[in-house]
Amino acid sequence: MDHKEGRLQLEQTSAAAARGGVTVVERRLLESLLETAGNPPIRIRLWGGEEIVAGTAAPVATMVIRDRGALMRMLVNPEVYPADDYSDGRIEIEGDLVSFLEHVFRGLDNLPDKSLKARFLRWMNKPRANTLSGSKENIHHHYDLGNEFYRLWLDTARMQYTCAYYPHPGMSIEEAQIAKLDHVARKLELKPGQVVFEAGCGWGGLARHFAQHYGVTVKAYNISQEQVKFARERAKQEGLDGKVEYILDDYRTMQGECDVFVSVGMLEHVGVDNYPVLGDVIHRVLKPHGRGLIHSIGRNKPAPMNAWTEKRIFPGAYPATLAEMMRILEGHQFSVLDVENLRLHYAHTLEAWLNRYEAHIDDVRKMYDERFVRMWRMYLAASQASFLTGALQLFQIVFARPQDNTIPMNREHLYPR
Amino acid sequence: MDHKEGRLQLEQTSAAAARGGVTVVERRLLESLLETAGNPPIRIRLWGGEEIVAGTAAPVATMVIRDRGALMRMLVNPEVYPADDYSDGRIEIEGDLVSFLEHVFRGLDNLPDKSLKARFLRWMNKPRANTLSGSKENIHHHYDLGNEFYRLWLDTARMQYTCAYYPHPGMSIEEAQIAKLDHVARKLELKPGQVVFEAGCGWGGLARHFAQHYGVTVKAYNISQEQVKFARERAKQEGLDGKVEYILDDYRTMQGECDVFVSVGMLEHVGVDNYPVLGDVIHRVLKPHGRGLIHSIGRNKPAPMNAWTEKRIFPGAYPATLAEMMRILEGHQFSVLDVENLRLHYAHTLEAWLNRYEAHIDDVRKMYDERFVRMWRMYLAASQASFLTGALQLFQIVFARPQDNTIPMNREHLYPR
Repeated sequence: MDHKEGRLQLEQTSAAAARGGVTVVERRLLESLLETAGNPPIRIRLWGGEEIVAGTAAPVATMVIRDRGALMRMLVNPEVYPADDYSDGRIEIEGDLVSFLEHVFRGLDNLPDKSLKARFLRWMNKPRANTLSGSKENIHHHYDLGNEFYRLWLDTARMQYTCAYYPHPGMSIEEAQIAKLDHVARKLELKPGQVVFEAGCGWGGLARHFAQHYGVTVKAYNISQEQVKFARERAKQEGLDGKVEYILDDYRTMQGECDVFVSVGMLEHVGVDNYPVLGDVIHRVLKPHGRGLIHSIGRNKPAPMNAWTEKRIFPGAYPATLAEMMRILEGHQFSVLDVENLRLHYAHTLEAWLNRYEAHIDDVRKMYDERFVRMWRMYLAASQASFLTGALQLFQIVFARPQDNTIPMNREHLYPR
Repeated sequence: MDHKEGRLQLEQTSAAAARGGVTVVERRLLESLLETAGNPPIRIRLWGGEEIVAGTAAPVATMVIRDRGALMRMLVNPEVYPADDYSDGRIEIEGDLVSFLEHVFRGLDNLPDKSLKARFLRWMNKPRANTLSGSKENIHHHYDLGNEFYRLWLDTARMQYTCAYYPHPGMSIEEAQIAKLDHVARKLELKPGQVVFEAGCGWGGLARHFAQHYGVTVKAYNISQEQVKFARERAKQEGLDGKVEYILDDYRTMQGECDVFVSVGMLEHVGVDNYPVLGDVIHRVLKPHGRGLIHSIGRNKPAPMNAWTEKRIFPGAYPATLAEMMRILEGHQFSVLDVENLRLHYAHTLEAWLNRYEAHIDDVRKMYDERFVRMWRMYLAASQASFLTGALQLFQIVFARPQDNTIPMNREHLYPR
């Protein structure tokens, strides 16, 4: 086959032509869409058997579009409908799903911000608001799916549904999640007897780990009922119920004083408009020599969460830029001591989750229908591809009060040997 | 003496009263100014001998105001005139100058942004613009003072007029400046044969150090004639003139390609409006797997440079917040890998410079008049106090292209043992 540079190639089998393939208009629109995405090295096979190869490199995978409706929907909103149609089985990916998405995302990242298409997609896909009641609904949608479901593919040790830390390659997800908690603990310079406030505690693994290994007491906030119930039971089983307190409430209701403020994987659900309020909360509770850490998915420049993910998986979620995150800290002049970007660690984490998800796919099928099974596969694969392509970042930000001169002189203590 | 909480105390000696001290109105205005500054623990002695003690703690130092004019000027613009009058000898500080300034700055930092006084000071003290010709004038004002002058009090090894790095307390300024260069080199993952572009190279110490110890070639830009002349001579003496090239031109004229972009202590002079242009320059020259580092004085929240420093020492200078610095990187989606805050290292650096300055004060007096001698003492002391009180920060930002997956997984390599 003769590949001309940067141009689409049509492979029309005589059989497909006989069955009646896409119309000329449909084909042109699909070509235009693939061009917009920078002609990634993929093959598209249509319901009639007709194949289209984008780009000039060997295709990494084949996207099978099973009916005309799925193609039409893709042309209308390529950010949302193809993933929906994958969930419904109207679209299939033959070959490696993550590689496929990685190549498509690389192209889409280069879509100019001000293009009509980009603006239309942004307008259509505006995230939902995080008012106190809105947050509860948004969080319920995702985190109350059932602890049994998450248990199937998260680490068994601490049930961490956030980016792990791999100081050594080849670590298990269990080891890497523990390493993450210890990395965060070192960044916070935890000392026995200190009081830690945690905003958004998931299944409570960080709180229990800190209480058990660092001699601190933790007050951990979460608005997901299922998670708090699980966290409390675990704390009881582990004999930590005097040392950790799980509070089923919004972080905005935090009261009292703490030596350490920590929030791992909650900021994504806070909404930029609420960042100054989060800053006010931290200012209200953090002692003069307190340390703070925020761990969150982020962006290199402002852009909404992928519209499909926001719609189907994480309502109200938004990955902020570092500049946007500064709105939390600037109001009270908190001083940023350290920022680390763990983007590739999140790609590893998602790879581990996806592998475990596939290994337990039959168990997932017992709990949910096939649409859900495929939707979550798409979500995990798309997230991995997003971190691999730099569409998403993972920032850990350490901060302190502006006039605190007890801050560490360097970061050597983060790397014990 | 009876100190009432939070109130000013007047100590009127009968002698002072006899000579005729301040008027009631003058005293009230001075009280109001000290209250605005949070009543720092200082003593003020007026020309008639009358003393005023602010705050309730023991005074750390005494400010002697030698004439009524100096007091009036202080009341009109406390950010600019007292430092000018210190330079002119109309104001003296008895006791430790840095401690005095530290306590005054702590109070002034708490001045509400929206107060009439704060707004008035901002309006009055607007920094000068950094156009291509404006930059040359601004830079000439400061850096072309004469290499002999800076030689008196900077480190002798590399003539670094930027924050040093003290991995171990008690290091000399020579050792700490070398440690800074090596810290930056590790952050940039320098490899032999690489091409480094440096924007704003001072006396060229970084370029020569990198060329000599890391086997790279460096193209270094600077618009200060005196510095470039010095840098070229040194490179020749050290046999490095084939490996480092000093270019007497603005960073905006950079051409070609580099593996590493580095800028240490130039951003302060760039001006926020020019940040996207700096980003464009980096985007134009940096290779796909290139690394970048920007080292700059910064702020926890937006505020102009201290007006006196901007006026007398650094025309056009502005210490930006992290959020503002992101305007350099967001336009081309550069990915922030690492941010470190070296605030207390700059306080140490300034302490070392000030000590050496005082030790060579007689040599300075041979070169400049007493006004200059006192002005530079005030500047070094005020800078040290600014870093000690968190009014200023020092950020090192490491960045890479968004899709570069060759970035290091962690920062252990920054801490060799």
